[in-house]
Amino acid sequence: MLSHFFETLLPVIEADLKTVLHPPSGSPPLFYRMLHYHMGWVDSRGRHVKGARGGKRIRPVLCLLTCEAVSGDYEPARPAAAAVELIHNFSLLHDDIEDHSPTRRNRRTVWAIWGEEQAINAGDTLFVLAHLAIPRLTPAAGLPAEVAVRLLHILDETSLELTRGQHLDMSFEGRSRVSTGEYLDMIAGKTAALLAASAWMGALSGGADDQAQMHYRAFGENLGMAFQVMDDILDIWGDPSVTGKEAAIDIRQRKKSLPVLHALAHSSELQDLYSMAEPFDEATVSRVIRLLDQTGAREYAEETARRYSEETLACLEAVGPEGEAGQALFELTDRLLHRDR
Amino acid sequence: MLSHFFETLLPVIEADLKTVLHPPSGSPPLFYRMLHYHMGWVDSRGRHVKGARGGKRIRPVLCLLTCEAVSGDYEPARPAAAAVELIHNFSLLHDDIEDHSPTRRNRRTVWAIWGEEQAINAGDTLFVLAHLAIPRLTPAAGLPAEVAVRLLHILDETSLELTRGQHLDMSFEGRSRVSTGEYLDMIAGKTAALLAASAWMGALSGGADDQAQMHYRAFGENLGMAFQVMDDILDIWGDPSVTGKEAAIDIRQRKKSLPVLHALAHSSELQDLYSMAEPFDEATVSRVIRLLDQTGAREYAEETARRYSEETLACLEAVGPEGEAGQALFELTDRLLHRDR
Repeated sequence: MLSHFFETLLPVIEADLKTVLHPPSGSPPLFYRMLHYHMGWVDSRGRHVKGARGGKRIRPVLCLLTCEAVSGDYEPARPAAAAVELIHNFSLLHDDIEDHSPTRRNRRTVWAIWGEEQAINAGDTLFVLAHLAIPRLTPAAGLPAEVAVRLLHILDETSLELTRGQHLDMSFEGRSRVSTGEYLDMIAGKTAALLAASAWMGALSGGADDQAQMHYRAFGENLGMAFQVMDDILDIWGDPSVTGKEAAIDIRQRKKSLPVLHALAHSSELQDLYSMAEPFDEATVSRVIRLLDQTGAREYAEETARRYSEETLACLEAVGPEGEAGQALFELTDRLLHRDR
Repeated sequence: MLSHFFETLLPVIEADLKTVLHPPSGSPPLFYRMLHYHMGWVDSRGRHVKGARGGKRIRPVLCLLTCEAVSGDYEPARPAAAAVELIHNFSLLHDDIEDHSPTRRNRRTVWAIWGEEQAINAGDTLFVLAHLAIPRLTPAAGLPAEVAVRLLHILDETSLELTRGQHLDMSFEGRSRVSTGEYLDMIAGKTAALLAASAWMGALSGGADDQAQMHYRAFGENLGMAFQVMDDILDIWGDPSVTGKEAAIDIRQRKKSLPVLHALAHSSELQDLYSMAEPFDEATVSRVIRLLDQTGAREYAEETARRYSEETLACLEAVGPEGEAGQALFELTDRLLHRDR
């Protein structure tokens, strides 16, 4: 069922994103090309690239599925779906500058190609266009002004959560002690808020009542929390052949992920290792992972992920999404919560 | 009349800006402090500073005056006024990073104190809060949802113009030839669009009809164009004791301002000077100004400014703003168009 929906919805999402990001005549060529490159549509010289390279579009799919589950139709959520995907991409573009990441999805990042100055401005442009998705796509979707205002309000309160989360994430780098509670607060802003908004805005667009909207919002939020904590676990203990990612990147980059923070609070040897100036060699990476295992960091993180996963399903069951879209929502949830399979 | 309005309106504007930028309890302290610093309210350690250091608040004053002129009341425009001032400040914060400017208004810039990474994110936060000014201040202003949606739409189309203008401005740096037409298109986005939106959103908030809205928009746009071209002229030929700025900074920084672009198109000697790698010494700066004088660059720029100034007044007279606020609008226009006096 889910793959059927992906087949139907992905072309709709791409078409809407392209409508919102369509350059008006007379636009400076590079102005939009940087955005089309970041979205995975063209290469750095503006030539069309085949196949999807722009990410999995999880957020807009979640938004459209939620709308269809509550109303039997995904059309009213098309403005919201485009908006959340563009907000996501805006945050990636600026995060790549702030994190000095030279690549994303095996392609050079916008700042690495066109410089930080243009990349900051390109991110700002994407942020503006995320907002313009609502008025530009709303007439076709037939949403009343009250709903459009609410969607924009949710979009901005969510973006504020994103920037707060990113602020905390960057602040943590310069601190020797960060509590697991602070970390969970950070990922609530950086990861969970936009998944919460995706489901919430889908439900709102579909005309769900306030209670159902809050259930969908909580569903998306817990899904985001579970997803991020599992991401932290898979980085260290996942099978690279399944996750598709190099093993233990978080450890090598000394990222303060949830298992690491738990272990840091319980091992002074680990604290010493993390305060070393030199990069970790292979032996140190192995030693770090052994210390994580000894302090019960894996069990702690898995228990945390399990709690959020259960809450995710409880929220979804509470609202009881119907029909094929409801079934697809459960399948999407299952897939996101079990990426280790 | 104008100074009376400034006395009345500035405290209202500051109070609204502080409402929108009020940190919710539990906020990371630095997250809002960077914004309060940029707005001129606190020093880098978060200590309250006395006196206005945050700029002249021209845009929100223009917005509120326009609203009062069309409706007899400035209250309905308070959300729009806060929004345009925050958009202006967001763009300054990111421009300072992109231009590598270490100071603004005799204070260190946000990136110079807290680093580029946090500053990019602080600018994003200010951008989000500019949008949130509308829903957060709208209930008190009593605006219907249709008007709020329109205000946000104008705000975003304007922000898109800002980022387009900034993109062009940065692109011009790397180019040897830029036409005066391209330059005027750039400042239309970078400077005039937000002044146009300030007057337009003020008129819309006050309930002006479509025709009056378009007149106020054109008034603000021409005012912005005239203002920027005069800024270019004053930089080179202005009296530093009147403008309060060091003379010929644009020449020293080799900024492609309107008089310079006119002269570059008419003097191969100037083209040679501008393609030199070394910084300009005092003799070269004098020679550049002599070449500008010889090519009629000053007359060209003054004629351009005069045309925009006349159009500004024609738009304002066409719509005929009434009462004391109308009188104040004419005074504000006069002051902005005659900064050399």
